[in-house]
Amino acid sequence: MPKVLITTVPFGNIDRLPLELLENNNFEYLINPLNKKLTENELVNLVKDFDVIIAGTEPITKKVMDSATNLKMISRVGIGLDSVDLLEAEKRGIIVSYTPDAPASAVSELTIGLMITLLRSVQISNTEMHNGKWHRFFGRRLSEITIGIIGAGRIGVGVLQHLQCFNPQEILLNDIKPDYSLDKKFNIKWLGKEEIYKQADIISIHTPLTVQTKNMVTREQLLSMKKDAIIINTARGGIVNEYDLYDIMQADHLSGAAIDVFDFEPYDGQLQKIQRCILTAHMGSMSVDCRKRMETEATEEVVRYLTNQPLQNVVTEGEYIVQREGL
Amino acid sequence: MPKVLITTVPFGNIDRLPLELLENNNFEYLINPLNKKLTENELVNLVKDFDVIIAGTEPITKKVMDSATNLKMISRVGIGLDSVDLLEAEKRGIIVSYTPDAPASAVSELTIGLMITLLRSVQISNTEMHNGKWHRFFGRRLSEITIGIIGAGRIGVGVLQHLQCFNPQEILLNDIKPDYSLDKKFNIKWLGKEEIYKQADIISIHTPLTVQTKNMVTREQLLSMKKDAIIINTARGGIVNEYDLYDIMQADHLSGAAIDVFDFEPYDGQLQKIQRCILTAHMGSMSVDCRKRMETEATEEVVRYLTNQPLQNVVTEGEYIVQREGL
Repeated sequence: MPKVLITTVPFGNIDRLPLELLENNNFEYLINPLNKKLTENELVNLVKDFDVIIAGTEPITKKVMDSATNLKMISRVGIGLDSVDLLEAEKRGIIVSYTPDAPASAVSELTIGLMITLLRSVQISNTEMHNGKWHRFFGRRLSEITIGIIGAGRIGVGVLQHLQCFNPQEILLNDIKPDYSLDKKFNIKWLGKEEIYKQADIISIHTPLTVQTKNMVTREQLLSMKKDAIIINTARGGIVNEYDLYDIMQADHLSGAAIDVFDFEPYDGQLQKIQRCILTAHMGSMSVDCRKRMETEATEEVVRYLTNQPLQNVVTEGEYIVQREGL
Repeated sequence: MPKVLITTVPFGNIDRLPLELLENNNFEYLINPLNKKLTENELVNLVKDFDVIIAGTEPITKKVMDSATNLKMISRVGIGLDSVDLLEAEKRGIIVSYTPDAPASAVSELTIGLMITLLRSVQISNTEMHNGKWHRFFGRRLSEITIGIIGAGRIGVGVLQHLQCFNPQEILLNDIKPDYSLDKKFNIKWLGKEEIYKQADIISIHTPLTVQTKNMVTREQLLSMKKDAIIINTARGGIVNEYDLYDIMQADHLSGAAIDVFDFEPYDGQLQKIQRCILTAHMGSMSVDCRKRMETEATEEVVRYLTNQPLQNVVTEGEYIVQREGL
């Protein structure tokens, strides 16, 4: 009987459907007993005789695969593949699938909420009011400002769509492979990253984590932003350097930030001291419907694999090229 | 030389233009020296020999007018007129003007931010993360839910416009005088208030404060809402009863609330104890551009009055009817 390890938590909480799919097929499964994002070593110890991993964002490295001698498939609940060593998986014939469409709408909507919250200092007023302090903060509206979006994939374009009803002054867009057909739908300006950092009032990151984007935004880039700019990272930890962000905000640069993703999760670091930096617990995709769709799609792919049906969500060749060529 | 009392604070902070308008005309002015929303008695003491008040939301009652023997004009910085006894002003020939268009876009944009923040528990995760606690909250997206808007004036319609890019399941609308031409622009359903309370996942209040809307939402209405509904009041304090809201949230009813306006401001009450109730300091209109526009328009009207030019923003007859007939 095939054995499935589910590492991403929570799983099957909002809807048992994905668990039922496994049960109805008599597949044995184990949900991550540590109930947190696993480290490489924890995963090495857990994974030993499992055939399939239904995976979160924990590191699935060569060392993990060395330990997982039965592993035949990794089904990622989500879109990012930075946590999976695709080239090692390929060498061993381990199939990797993902759910690239499911999280986009939840992440892009949250991003708009974070923009407005930061522009209006809602989280600061809320904390003060709960402590009995009344101060009316001035803010800005989306329609007064320039918004820079780095990464024009599913999520970046989702943000673009939501922004249409707020009519920003200007939307600046950057992508490693610009899709110029977007110009027909949206009033946008394609621009180099460095120019966007300088010109935008809000910079929102929507790239995958790759060798190229790791530490894409460090001290230098942050300091090139306007003193009252806002940066938002709902993409992946490590793209915006957390230590540099703390340093420059501590020194009064930037008016606000929202960080949903961290180098090491659960996060426990110095950004906790910066009140104008909103911190959330990797909740971008955590809307009930998106999470349900992600869990269900990832599990359905596992069922297809284990019952010899054609797969539908195998990771595209492009993702292997990113890792092979260090793009 | 005419004397102008500016009671609303802050004033002239983001841009000195309105103060310069007064200075250039050699009008004497005093900005509220208590630097907070004035009570009736404080205003009685301050107002004595002023010719004009550039007013916030402090009570301008018969008692205040009795004390203000020189008063000839009240120029409201904003839209709501619940704080001004229009009938007393009319008796004494005191002109009242306002800036009804200026605040709408700032209030409606903030409202959308509050909706997303509450749906995704951003303020709760943010507080927890700043205290080193990691918990991934599930949320909902605007496109999954039914939104109820009570009051389809400038601000309610602004909310409706912003919502178009999020594609909610259904938008329910209520107004004392429904403008059915909105049906051509938006996919909406006109419905009675009591039905909206029952059916909506988010109920957002955008009515003026009148005899009819004072305590419009009390215990009974709150309890008729879904257990996981959200209520937002960015309109006026007193429309949603604060004490009842505390009671029912304390007893685990409603999943969230956002209250920007209070019976008595600065607010200091029990809602401070409810973490899932976002509290902000009457900041709906506090975007730099809207505030500047409100202050400038209100001051320009004062200059027009004091230099015998035709007025442009005198309060409409409809506002007097509301107070006269207790609507």
